[in-house]
Amino acid sequence: MINQLIDKIKQTGAPIVVGLDPMLSYVPEHLRKKAYAELGETLEGAAEAIWEFNKQIIDHTCDLIPAVKPQIAMYEQFGVPGMIAFQRTVEYSKKKGLVVIGDIKRGDIGSTSAAYADGHLGKVTIGSNTYAPFNEDFATVNPYLGSDGIDPFIKVCKEENKGLFILVKTSNPSSGEFQDRLIEGRPLYEWVGEKVAEWGESHMGTGYSYIGAVVGATYPEMGKVLRRIMPKTYILVPGYGAQGGQGEDLVHFFNPDGLGAIVNSSRGIIAAYQQEAYQQYGAEHFAEASRAAVNDMVKDIQGALEAR
Amino acid sequence: MINQLIDKIKQTGAPIVVGLDPMLSYVPEHLRKKAYAELGETLEGAAEAIWEFNKQIIDHTCDLIPAVKPQIAMYEQFGVPGMIAFQRTVEYSKKKGLVVIGDIKRGDIGSTSAAYADGHLGKVTIGSNTYAPFNEDFATVNPYLGSDGIDPFIKVCKEENKGLFILVKTSNPSSGEFQDRLIEGRPLYEWVGEKVAEWGESHMGTGYSYIGAVVGATYPEMGKVLRRIMPKTYILVPGYGAQGGQGEDLVHFFNPDGLGAIVNSSRGIIAAYQQEAYQQYGAEHFAEASRAAVNDMVKDIQGALEAR
Repeated sequence: MINQLIDKIKQTGAPIVVGLDPMLSYVPEHLRKKAYAELGETLEGAAEAIWEFNKQIIDHTCDLIPAVKPQIAMYEQFGVPGMIAFQRTVEYSKKKGLVVIGDIKRGDIGSTSAAYADGHLGKVTIGSNTYAPFNEDFATVNPYLGSDGIDPFIKVCKEENKGLFILVKTSNPSSGEFQDRLIEGRPLYEWVGEKVAEWGESHMGTGYSYIGAVVGATYPEMGKVLRRIMPKTYILVPGYGAQGGQGEDLVHFFNPDGLGAIVNSSRGIIAAYQQEAYQQYGAEHFAEASRAAVNDMVKDIQGALEAR
Repeated sequence: MINQLIDKIKQTGAPIVVGLDPMLSYVPEHLRKKAYAELGETLEGAAEAIWEFNKQIIDHTCDLIPAVKPQIAMYEQFGVPGMIAFQRTVEYSKKKGLVVIGDIKRGDIGSTSAAYADGHLGKVTIGSNTYAPFNEDFATVNPYLGSDGIDPFIKVCKEENKGLFILVKTSNPSSGEFQDRLIEGRPLYEWVGEKVAEWGESHMGTGYSYIGAVVGATYPEMGKVLRRIMPKTYILVPGYGAQGGQGEDLVHFFNPDGLGAIVNSSRGIIAAYQQEAYQQYGAEHFAEASRAAVNDMVKDIQGALEAR
């Protein structure tokens, strides 16, 4: 799957992923009204609105991008109907040829991590049948519990040819509270990064590992160090755009081969129509605004990579 | 809610919580057969089997215990039907007067943590309606992202009179890989513990905070230190029984007032009928075996507390 992701990045020329994090406030009023007319102002209505919103964005961007990253919290908040919308989003994205990174940030002790891994990346066996319940291609996971919280995920990734992105240095302002603390003179995130590189050795694709890392665009200097510590690790970089990261901040996340990083933008793409730069599209044409924002983001990053 | 939990602990004399982590292999064959006959060997069939299993255990133990802790991974692995079983389990447990600790170990950047908090502990607004999708009383959360991953949970807890248990030192063998690393001469888990105590100050109940901590029974010496660092923090203690912890290991997790800790057992209670000690019950009477195991666990812990 990491090979497939890299192939698609090369083919589109776009080392980016669109974060499908549909807050209700991003969904244009006409879509909300339509969903509520059909299903009421209910969890089902909200789930229908975000699903229809996603679908149009996927339809308008899928030829330009390699991957999408649905953030499960934005679906889970609408309970069971929200989880159905998550599942439909994963399924539809794959049908459209996109790689799906489930941004689930799960992580627990052994047997529990195994259950998450089975449910999100693998299969469960019920009697004589097997099912792939959520069936993402990659999942994000949290490393706080150490190897035996990660190993069950890697086991399933090997069986299913799938991958992970493990949190190393997150994009939020307070990520340093624990992640930056010094251990033997080096920040915790470097130790986690080393461990990610080590875990990655056990499940290599061509050139890069199936086991990637998450490092926030908001910390470019740390990205530079981590790029060196984890040379064969693909880095998923959140925090571009709305959170403050820009193209020039991102060049150090990439290797000299132009690979090694995939940059996420969520609000900046999916709610582009609400920004001044794209307001000419209007709410009716929100998905076209998203398409324009994808093109601009690719130009920004490619420009920065060429200028380095 | 922390006051309510403490009241129920005093009333039952049982500082324990039953972990509702229903692996399919724990569910007696007659329940699986019945569910599959009705719904097939499907995700729906599996979800029905674990729900019926839970229901009987709740019915047979709810007068003895203050709380249950469903581990959401065990439901999530069965996709959407599993999430329905999770929701039914939460609802039914509350109807039976139990406090529900959702073992969800979520944690993300600000707006995403807010979505998890709304979905699991709070409410979402859709048009002019509000819904409480999963509606647990407490949730477990992961601290790796720092304060701005935790604050949105605390905000919702204040609005809804609910609480958290934040991972400090987990019960698994490799928890030390990162959690035990020394920062200025003290392990990371102590720094996290101090932060939990600080976060807890902002949302106090009577004597104890609504913001608790998770510390594994498998690390009693660390529990002793953490008890001192977080005097007003309720400690949720997993790892009793199947994972190796015993009553005598647990005394230091409690304050001199006999409060301050609640000990979880999952497999040891819900799959008691599969153990030699309770095999006389047989699979047909699995829930009675669970009841006997609850009584034995309470005796073990109370005995250890009295002997200290």
